[in-house]
Amino acid sequence: MQITDLIAAKRDGRQLPVQAIRELIVAVSDGSVADYQVSAWLMACFLNGLSDEETVALTAAIRDSGEVLEWSPGGGPVSDKHSTGGVGDKVSIVLAPLAAACGLRVPMISGRSLGHTGGTLDKLESIPGFRTSLTPSEVALQVEELGFAMAGQSSSLAPADRKLYALRDATSTVSSVELICASILGKKLAEGLDTLVLDVKCGSGAFMKTPDSARKLGEKLIAVARQLGCSTSALLTRMSIPLGLAVGNSLEIVESLQLLRGGGPTEVRELVIRLTAMMVSASDSSLTADAAASLCRERLGCGEALSLFERMVVAQGGDLDAFETSVRTTRGGERLEVRSPRSGFFAGMDALTVGETVRGMGGGRYRTDDIIDHSVGWEQLAPPGRDVAAGELLGIVHAGSAESAVKAESALRDAMIWDSPVDDLVLGEL
Amino acid sequence: MQITDLIAAKRDGRQLPVQAIRELIVAVSDGSVADYQVSAWLMACFLNGLSDEETVALTAAIRDSGEVLEWSPGGGPVSDKHSTGGVGDKVSIVLAPLAAACGLRVPMISGRSLGHTGGTLDKLESIPGFRTSLTPSEVALQVEELGFAMAGQSSSLAPADRKLYALRDATSTVSSVELICASILGKKLAEGLDTLVLDVKCGSGAFMKTPDSARKLGEKLIAVARQLGCSTSALLTRMSIPLGLAVGNSLEIVESLQLLRGGGPTEVRELVIRLTAMMVSASDSSLTADAAASLCRERLGCGEALSLFERMVVAQGGDLDAFETSVRTTRGGERLEVRSPRSGFFAGMDALTVGETVRGMGGGRYRTDDIIDHSVGWEQLAPPGRDVAAGELLGIVHAGSAESAVKAESALRDAMIWDSPVDDLVLGEL
Repeated sequence: MQITDLIAAKRDGRQLPVQAIRELIVAVSDGSVADYQVSAWLMACFLNGLSDEETVALTAAIRDSGEVLEWSPGGGPVSDKHSTGGVGDKVSIVLAPLAAACGLRVPMISGRSLGHTGGTLDKLESIPGFRTSLTPSEVALQVEELGFAMAGQSSSLAPADRKLYALRDATSTVSSVELICASILGKKLAEGLDTLVLDVKCGSGAFMKTPDSARKLGEKLIAVARQLGCSTSALLTRMSIPLGLAVGNSLEIVESLQLLRGGGPTEVRELVIRLTAMMVSASDSSLTADAAASLCRERLGCGEALSLFERMVVAQGGDLDAFETSVRTTRGGERLEVRSPRSGFFAGMDALTVGETVRGMGGGRYRTDDIIDHSVGWEQLAPPGRDVAAGELLGIVHAGSAESAVKAESALRDAMIWDSPVDDLVLGEL
Repeated sequence: MQITDLIAAKRDGRQLPVQAIRELIVAVSDGSVADYQVSAWLMACFLNGLSDEETVALTAAIRDSGEVLEWSPGGGPVSDKHSTGGVGDKVSIVLAPLAAACGLRVPMISGRSLGHTGGTLDKLESIPGFRTSLTPSEVALQVEELGFAMAGQSSSLAPADRKLYALRDATSTVSSVELICASILGKKLAEGLDTLVLDVKCGSGAFMKTPDSARKLGEKLIAVARQLGCSTSALLTRMSIPLGLAVGNSLEIVESLQLLRGGGPTEVRELVIRLTAMMVSASDSSLTADAAASLCRERLGCGEALSLFERMVVAQGGDLDAFETSVRTTRGGERLEVRSPRSGFFAGMDALTVGETVRGMGGGRYRTDDIIDHSVGWEQLAPPGRDVAAGELLGIVHAGSAESAVKAESALRDAMIWDSPVDDLVLGEL
């Protein structure tokens, strides 16, 4: 099928043959189709949609555009978790070692901060020396040895996604459920997974603003992943306020370490346990959800997850001692306390505003080549969902300069939500 | 407005500000916007449409992307005709000198063959030495001296259209009424016209297959051109069968010379007179349509149009004697007579099939760098709309080789239309 015919077919809302989609994605990968033709096709897909069959074909073609990891038959089930992105979401950093501690193999390939949302790689790179650029064979080796690895997207895994995403980003065609679905799963399934658990975020700080749209995305992801042979389930979770109390790269590593040591915010710990338990029980049908959760709770409590995390950091070149020293020593100067301007029921901080504020302080990127300041962020002290008094300390802004801190404080003051109920963290399970 | 916002707005069906469209087209011209962004925007325009206001803004921006011809105040009204393209349409070649003979200034910028349709430039280039690449100032000078010029699109007139058209062609976004409208008028209005007459073709050999779609295009063209200050009217004409009897570049020049000498097919002559009269009466409100037609008939009859055509050919480097000699001498070898396979009412030949057949013989292009064989074509001898006997000579195939002639004859046999009425040539006036 000629590319102009493929574009015309989708322009007219016609179903594309699986083989034509596969050939298009091969051509995207090898550069034999012009970017301007791909972007016109993407816009036609965005506006006229893709059927389930087309979405499956596109996902498979993206997965197969590069290497697909293969695993030795003897080891534990291969599993991963994917979050659709939010503010303060450090779940992966705790979940990956915990899942490994439960006997799973977790070849976790993560992303960087995007827009106002944080990225697991950027958080991990707060740790001095930590290396996120592993080759697929380094990932495989470390997973077989330690049970997990936490790396960035390699150019040899699902390379078509990188090209498609760059074009979508430049042509306002990101927010299509089918294209999102193919992008997420094309990359994840290149990890060679047996099972996958999705955390579909919903609310101001998420890509999907309403429970309906989040559910729609979750259902589509599950349907497509299952058709491609990966056992998949999902939670819909609240992203109207940040997850946990820390937002910002090194602050979130600090909170992750607290969680791995058995502390940290209860809500985040419970979410980590629930998502990890979904991975465990999906991989072992003899375990009930409760039994899987108990196993996770035990593995977290006994320090096994922390120990694996520490070994992973060493394996990937990081120095946790240096990290903890730098956290203690370098953050004195630009701290600004934020106090409650009123008394009342404090329902938390608007996730989007917090995310944008931290990004504005240098904790995220506006352009892909922006350099991140790992130290900046928002450290909330008052958990959401409680009465506070006027003047009470709500949290601390960590900024790169006094000017930036003052600007952030003003934005954060506007982000405070008062006198409305706090939604449950888990909005549903799919 | 950022380009991604502009794309998103059209993606979501929102109205674009005039200024944003203007800036986009400036960016298209100077190459500061990526092709893949423009093509995504074009697909969004194709699928979500453009309002009249947006179409006017886009047309004006294309017109203003290069030089706009300016005319001395003393001379006659500046006018042109545009046809949406068909098979056997040699109207321009007769109309331009005739309009000049009636006192109009006609800076006619024409196109080349496109798909199965012929192009005025390719036809004129059948004349040895004829030069169609004039600079805007050469066009202006010749129009002031002779009353008309017949040239190709210069890179300094409406350059944005060239880029947009190339992208549309490669991304299946050609067939949008609004984009067609902006492309046609953006180029035509760069000629600095007072008045414009449109010949909107309708039928198998035309871009618009149905009277409804042709009328819609005609109405849109008139509305936009009028809003931009150009007095515009249109005829809807039949393109289910070719216009006139000759199809093919030099064959059409021969028929044009017959028409300029007072002969040729009556229907074509009447169409030329009607369209020219519309140009004349639009430019002089004191003339009725009948009076304008009488003037045209007189100017054609007295040989003034022929004389101007001959002078134009000389001015543009062409040698009509050499053309007429070559027509007489070089077409002997590959003539193939086509005889009627049956008796019955012969309603003509399907325009699309004839156009594709002549293109297949080398009279048109499949790629922009294909070289045209000006000598090939179809010379019909039996006018449509009459009873013919089995075995009667219907026409002659002029081909580059015996093999090509036989192939063409077979296709043309399938193109014959039997026992159905012939539509009127003029389907409506707008």
